[in-house]
Amino acid sequence: MAHLLINKQNYLHNLNIINQKLQNIDKIAVVLKDNAYGHGLINIAQIANEYGIKKAVVRTIKEAEQIKDLFDYILVLGEVPEENYSHTFHITINSLQDIEKICKNTSVHLKVDTGMHRNGISMDMLEEAIYRISEKNLNLTGVFTHHRSSDVLSSEFFWQKTNFSHIKKEVFKICEKLNLDIPKFHSLNSSGVFRCEKIDDDFVRVGIAAYGYLDNEFPLEVPNLKPVASLVAKRISTTTIKKGQRIGYGGSYEAIEDTISSTYDIGYGDGFLRLTPEHGELITPKGYRLLGRVSMDSISLNTDDDEVVVFDDVRVLAKIHKTITYEIITTLSSDIKRVIC
Amino acid sequence: MAHLLINKQNYLHNLNIINQKLQNIDKIAVVLKDNAYGHGLINIAQIANEYGIKKAVVRTIKEAEQIKDLFDYILVLGEVPEENYSHTFHITINSLQDIEKICKNTSVHLKVDTGMHRNGISMDMLEEAIYRISEKNLNLTGVFTHHRSSDVLSSEFFWQKTNFSHIKKEVFKICEKLNLDIPKFHSLNSSGVFRCEKIDDDFVRVGIAAYGYLDNEFPLEVPNLKPVASLVAKRISTTTIKKGQRIGYGGSYEAIEDTISSTYDIGYGDGFLRLTPEHGELITPKGYRLLGRVSMDSISLNTDDDEVVVFDDVRVLAKIHKTITYEIITTLSSDIKRVIC
Repeated sequence: MAHLLINKQNYLHNLNIINQKLQNIDKIAVVLKDNAYGHGLINIAQIANEYGIKKAVVRTIKEAEQIKDLFDYILVLGEVPEENYSHTFHITINSLQDIEKICKNTSVHLKVDTGMHRNGISMDMLEEAIYRISEKNLNLTGVFTHHRSSDVLSSEFFWQKTNFSHIKKEVFKICEKLNLDIPKFHSLNSSGVFRCEKIDDDFVRVGIAAYGYLDNEFPLEVPNLKPVASLVAKRISTTTIKKGQRIGYGGSYEAIEDTISSTYDIGYGDGFLRLTPEHGELITPKGYRLLGRVSMDSISLNTDDDEVVVFDDVRVLAKIHKTITYEIITTLSSDIKRVIC
Repeated sequence: MAHLLINKQNYLHNLNIINQKLQNIDKIAVVLKDNAYGHGLINIAQIANEYGIKKAVVRTIKEAEQIKDLFDYILVLGEVPEENYSHTFHITINSLQDIEKICKNTSVHLKVDTGMHRNGISMDMLEEAIYRISEKNLNLTGVFTHHRSSDVLSSEFFWQKTNFSHIKKEVFKICEKLNLDIPKFHSLNSSGVFRCEKIDDDFVRVGIAAYGYLDNEFPLEVPNLKPVASLVAKRISTTTIKKGQRIGYGGSYEAIEDTISSTYDIGYGDGFLRLTPEHGELITPKGYRLLGRVSMDSISLNTDDDEVVVFDDVRVLAKIHKTITYEIITTLSSDIKRVIC
């Protein structure tokens, strides 16, 4: 079966770069949601733990449960549980209704909408939300927001940053009034971290940069991040194609000369997105060409190597698919084995 | 969490249509690979079993193991095991090397390349392959091929069909010479079944049609298949967007009037492919519009319903993504719960 090679040194290299920027390992929360962006939740959690990182961000309680022994502090973004879990879990409150649903004594992070207009309460409901949290005997351990345009060259990033500064001041006032501890503040993702000169939040949420990418739409001066995952596929069978013969579904590739062609065991059924020659030409790191379309369970390449590295940097695929690196890497099926090297 | 509703009646309806065409339930092998094309392996296997189907096609030994009590006959397409498994498993031989790897006494189906030029041995190696299979004491229980253009209006389908007829005759001769039982023959997939007036193979491999789709590039007279899967997402939070405000990453949606907007818990991290407004407009079956981009873990829609059916027919999405129904449904993460209704 095809497998995903996880380069531990590259992941550590990326954490080093992030740590150099922050100058404080306790300011890093690694984002491990969606199977660690497709890299394998447990593997990545273990390496981050070895490196000394104490905070993680996940989407579900199930993910949090799987890594609870590896972190002191786990923020759950996408699930409001109706029972109590480990006191190291901090649950995101996205709406006033969430406050009603959640058990008392749970630690919560209040998400505030500073301009993305997706999740989170609106800024004018801040006081009401904190009152209700306090009344419900929840522990307000964090207040945070999400930038919609960290990776776009515009003033929007600074507009949201200003909004968040305003929120911090408000939270201070409200907590003083209610005699509550001041919660932790966080707002920056990977692009945001490298975009700021000085980081005055309590911690940052680092996802894609730790995996080796930054999908910025403008040149951002960042150190050399290294992609962590490479996809390795195994040969199924080999055939010789004569000039003029066609390969695969619809015969969409026609050989321009006699060539060897082998099938490899990866396809869109594994979350390796479907490509057709109309998308553009995929060349592997070793220079092999994709012949015809990506099928559900296989691809054809002009080689007979027993194993082939299909990608070692998903920016190539993101460009062909006109998408972002996140999608290419995250959609890979969790059934593909992750192997640390 | 979002879940996939599996409409049992629609699946049975589609099996009925296929059965009416074949007039013999033993001629149907249901293709359950890749988590039953994303529909949930066990669920679909159980319904097919209740219907009386005895043959299934999977990709891996792991899949075959999961459904071995439900079928008498399981063809494994994509894995050559090096140990013995249930005698109900039939393993695909794609190359002469596969014959060397496999344990003696295993039942095998020999795949022959009749023009797709991907997997399988070439037609001129047929005799050598059967000799080797016999020498290795494998049981040749099947010989099959795969059409590259069942769904395209061209003569290629008939060219491959003629090639396969020729192969059948050769296999008869070789088996007679070697005193081997005549194996079962199969070549047709969903489109092939509905394209043929008369089906003279021993069985057919029905995948996508059973799930309610046929991705033909030409009008094919087929009965009314019904999509089996609907995706249901849950509301995370709701906000009111003022005219001119923007939503989501990059602020890619601008409200043309005051509107309500809610986030729902499905995103490309779940294998629900990423969409941006540049792809086209996604409207749900109830008429709600996707606002902005599909994020990793959520989408925004102009409603505040607690639950929303995101799709009940993936042809809509396949069109927007310029892909095939197979990809839309198969890439959905196996972590999404499948619920039979």
